Amino acid sequence: MDLELISIGSELLTGHTVNSNAAFLSQHLVRLGYRISRHTVLPDQTEIIQQGLREALQRVSLVITTGGLGPTIDDLTQGAVNKIFPKQTPLMNKLGTASGAFYHQKNQGFILLPGVPREMECMFLEEAVPLIKTHFPVHHPLYRKTCSFCLLREIEVNPILLDMKRQEPTVEIGIYPSQGTLSVEFLGFEMGLLEQMAKQLQKRFSAFYFAAPTIVQAVHQECIQRKKTLALAESCTGGAMAAKITAIPDASLYFLGSLVVYSNPWKEHFLQVSHSTLAQDGAVSRQAVDEMIQGLFHETKADFAIAVSGIAGPGGGSSKKPVGTICIAIGERGQKTDIGVLQAPQDRASAIEWAVQTSLGALWRRLVHKAYTFS
Amino acid sequence: MDLELISIGSELLTGHTVNSNAAFLSQHLVRLGYRISRHTVLPDQTEIIQQGLREALQRVSLVITTGGLGPTIDDLTQGAVNKIFPKQTPLMNKLGTASGAFYHQKNQGFILLPGVPREMECMFLEEAVPLIKTHFPVHHPLYRKTCSFCLLREIEVNPILLDMKRQEPTVEIGIYPSQGTLSVEFLGFEMGLLEQMAKQLQKRFSAFYFAAPTIVQAVHQECIQRKKTLALAESCTGGAMAAKITAIPDASLYFLGSLVVYSNPWKEHFLQVSHSTLAQDGAVSRQAVDEMIQGLFHETKADFAIAVSGIAGPGGGSSKKPVGTICIAIGERGQKTDIGVLQAPQDRASAIEWAVQTSLGALWRRLVHKAYTFS
Repeated sequence: MDLELISIGSELLTGHTVNSNAAFLSQHLVRLGYRISRHTVLPDQTEIIQQGLREALQRVSLVITTGGLGPTIDDLTQGAVNKIFPKQTPLMNKLGTASGAFYHQKNQGFILLPGVPREMECMFLEEAVPLIKTHFPVHHPLYRKTCSFCLLREIEVNPILLDMKRQEPTVEIGIYPSQGTLSVEFLGFEMGLLEQMAKQLQKRFSAFYFAAPTIVQAVHQECIQRKKTLALAESCTGGAMAAKITAIPDASLYFLGSLVVYSNPWKEHFLQVSHSTLAQDGAVSRQAVDEMIQGLFHETKADFAIAVSGIAGPGGGSSKKPVGTICIAIGERGQKTDIGVLQAPQDRASAIEWAVQTSLGALWRRLVHKAYTFS
Repeated sequence: MDLELISIGSELLTGHTVNSNAAFLSQHLVRLGYRISRHTVLPDQTEIIQQGLREALQRVSLVITTGGLGPTIDDLTQGAVNKIFPKQTPLMNKLGTASGAFYHQKNQGFILLPGVPREMECMFLEEAVPLIKTHFPVHHPLYRKTCSFCLLREIEVNPILLDMKRQEPTVEIGIYPSQGTLSVEFLGFEMGLLEQMAKQLQKRFSAFYFAAPTIVQAVHQECIQRKKTLALAESCTGGAMAAKITAIPDASLYFLGSLVVYSNPWKEHFLQVSHSTLAQDGAVSRQAVDEMIQGLFHETKADFAIAVSGIAGPGGGSSKKPVGTICIAIGERGQKTDIGVLQAPQDRASAIEWAVQTSLGALWRRLVHKAYTFS
């Protein structure tokens, strides 16, 4: 069954806010077997909201809106919709004041949800999903099967997918590279076929395939299951790796902490990186990250350790060490440290994200496959 | 001048990717005086792309698309558009292989950009913007004026804005609260009027108003200008505050580092938090964050310090310390430490973000206004 999402709010059209609500709803609805055929963002203007809603209801039978339901000056959705559909069932908002609404008549329906993400998410999962399942059951569900890989590039995977598509033209295939990890999505009406295709791909790249939705979740699960603790020493990633790890509940079951040593004196004081290494090799060097790992093992009881130091840019690059140069060390207590000097993308945000994902990918391969990635 | 954005990619409709491209383009186009009247996301299907583009060109004279231009299996935009508009000018892609396109005839135009954010951003700024300015000049630009405040809630600001709207009904006003900071946007055709309204609001909440686009940028600027260094001790924020600080180039000019002490032994070892404090008061206590600040000043040369410890959830709450309890300490070397025990939102991601923004807001007030926020 096809449905459309409409997000209402001038803050989205001015670029003030990124439309994460549409992504959240789509993820959940796809999992329930629905196909989302369009996202639309409309401004806080009554007539345009009404027109957009009418257009969408001509294309599909179910429309879900987010935003514009609060008590403040720019909240106009409810008023706009009242004029089209006067009789609605209110949906409770446990976390805020803006209540939602559900409307259903003659196989057509719409659902109004608030714009604040956590209020929207709670109302959607608890109130809207049961109504959607009851009134708009899925007869021919569209299934999705996703496979995630670390340390692989699009160019390595694409030829295999082109072959698969030739053999199974009814299955939609998407490749989503994301700074050091990559996922492939198969969409189709036969789950058995999707699973078979996914298995074929996993087998082809078995040393890089992880079952969790993200590489940080894969590391989380493996560390907890294997009862291994982890410590970090972060320079160029500046806490971003620790933040990603601790965003997951119960990270404290394996994660001891991170020394974000953003200045040379901190590297010397907290990790005993030698003054001469910093002076001669520089903070972005094999020797520096090796000493950072030794410092972590000396100062803490961690079983595994990651150290990262690099030039995230835009400044600080040189001909020998251009912007995007990243040194990563993966340490296991009592074992040889795996050290790589790598080239990340050259914009700051991508370089940081790439360093985080590549480090976690290499740690995961060390944990699961006992594999050295860089050396 | 109104224009529409169309993002193409099934990965957006399955929720795999958040549509950050639309936000980026909107921000820049609004600054150039354009008004974005709609965002649409369409799937990788030739006929639907063609139909969506035709519909948009009936409503507005300029349409910008992103996505679907690469060499892989799911890239269909160029093929779809070739059938409608055969003669296009190619736009160069400096950072990737997918080239863009510009089409212009009879006051109508469209621009095709790639979907990979950094490739899209570079092509847009360097190639597309000059073409847009030349062929679609803005005659009655819509101006925008934004004011940002820390440590204020929507409910405190809304009554003032309702009064302002009554006095100036032609000006569009938006309020965007975001976990501990809040911004207000005035949109209208007279910049002088917008500036006057902004000034009125800034005066009303002068102790909370900051001029930078975000609170972390405000802290960044103030620390560098005042030549003050900063150190962090993060428990519940798990590196998220350091990550936010180091996302900005040249953070190393004032930011020394963060001790992400995610386990009690690390709090004792690296910051000398006393074993008895952790046993009696717990890691989430006034006493613990006070000792964390003392530890930072003892171990490092920082001028200012922030320590945060809290219960981000979903587990770990109790009747005395429910989920969302956050202790924040703001320290200035040689001065009394400002300590607050606060209640953040109860979902993990919001609690972490709230703790980061609230801490940075309190630090900023201490730097600029010498104000104690919590005590």
